[in-house]
Amino acid sequence: MDGTALNEAVGGIVWLTGLSGAGKTTIAQAVYATLRAQGRRVELLDGDVIRTNLSKGLGFSKEDRDTNVRRVGFVCHLLARNGVVAIAAVISPYQTVRQEVRALGSPFVEVYVQAPLAVCEQRDVKGLYRRARAGLIQGFTGIDDPYEPPLAPDVVCCTDRETVAESVGKVLAAMAACGLG
Amino acid sequence: MDGTALNEAVGGIVWLTGLSGAGKTTIAQAVYATLRAQGRRVELLDGDVIRTNLSKGLGFSKEDRDTNVRRVGFVCHLLARNGVVAIAAVISPYQTVRQEVRALGSPFVEVYVQAPLAVCEQRDVKGLYRRARAGLIQGFTGIDDPYEPPLAPDVVCCTDRETVAESVGKVLAAMAACGLG
Repeated sequence: MDGTALNEAVGGIVWLTGLSGAGKTTIAQAVYATLRAQGRRVELLDGDVIRTNLSKGLGFSKEDRDTNVRRVGFVCHLLARNGVVAIAAVISPYQTVRQEVRALGSPFVEVYVQAPLAVCEQRDVKGLYRRARAGLIQGFTGIDDPYEPPLAPDVVCCTDRETVAESVGKVLAAMAACGLG
Repeated sequence: MDGTALNEAVGGIVWLTGLSGAGKTTIAQAVYATLRAQGRRVELLDGDVIRTNLSKGLGFSKEDRDTNVRRVGFVCHLLARNGVVAIAAVISPYQTVRQEVRALGSPFVEVYVQAPLAVCEQRDVKGLYRRARAGLIQGFTGIDDPYEPPLAPDVVCCTDRETVAESVGKVLAAMAACGLG
């Protein structure tokens, strides 16, 4: 059964996909803060929250990555159908599984957080690219594991060429366009 | 940040613990149906939903069981703080981890779904006890893996001596007593 009929608030999923270091969490946190300030029900599922609470026991094989993305999508959908805006910041490298999450049926805004690999690698906030290049991490997305860009994202944020505020504005506009405004 | 301040509806967690076959899902489904009929926001996380969507990659070691219970608790808490009554039907054999879930801070009703092992084993709806006794399943709770009964449950449902309606009535009364009515 779907809970949406019971709610005044409209819930949905804002899904940020992109390479490590592209700026997913930065934009997600800013969108979260904006919606909170508006008094919206909103939850943010990003890398740390997911690793701590949802993905223990999963590795970096394609199967495990798919399981992780499906799981985050499931939780977002549970929240969304109860009137919450669930913001997910997940690399989610595979197109098919992102589509599966969209197909769960909640209002869905796919945000492609885009920056050239060289830019992400130069930022390297967590030192992960350096470790991947040194062979200390196997199966790192963009280095020795694939990233499939979204075919028809609702928003593209080019984080090497726009400010966080500009990115947030585009996400909020896309939310409004699909009834989540 | 906690979402409860934003909601009119009060969310919380109804946590049913007990042996396989004790009747957790039966009571959980009946409570779910009752609350839905009242127009409440409610979600049910039981064995099938959890296995399909949350626990893939986990086994039956104590560590994996604990991870599973923590994960279900995390999802229930996310829902609860957004005004949803999250009903979980999970064996959750260890007292310490059930306490951790309670300590997350949502209104919490612990329901001990109690039936003697012999009764659960005789019911054996899924044939699991037979397979455990035959050695085909290792680490089966109540057979060769421990179950720690709740020390201070909010409700005890003795499913060998009361009807489902009686059990549901007790759960609803306990919910009301902690502000979830």
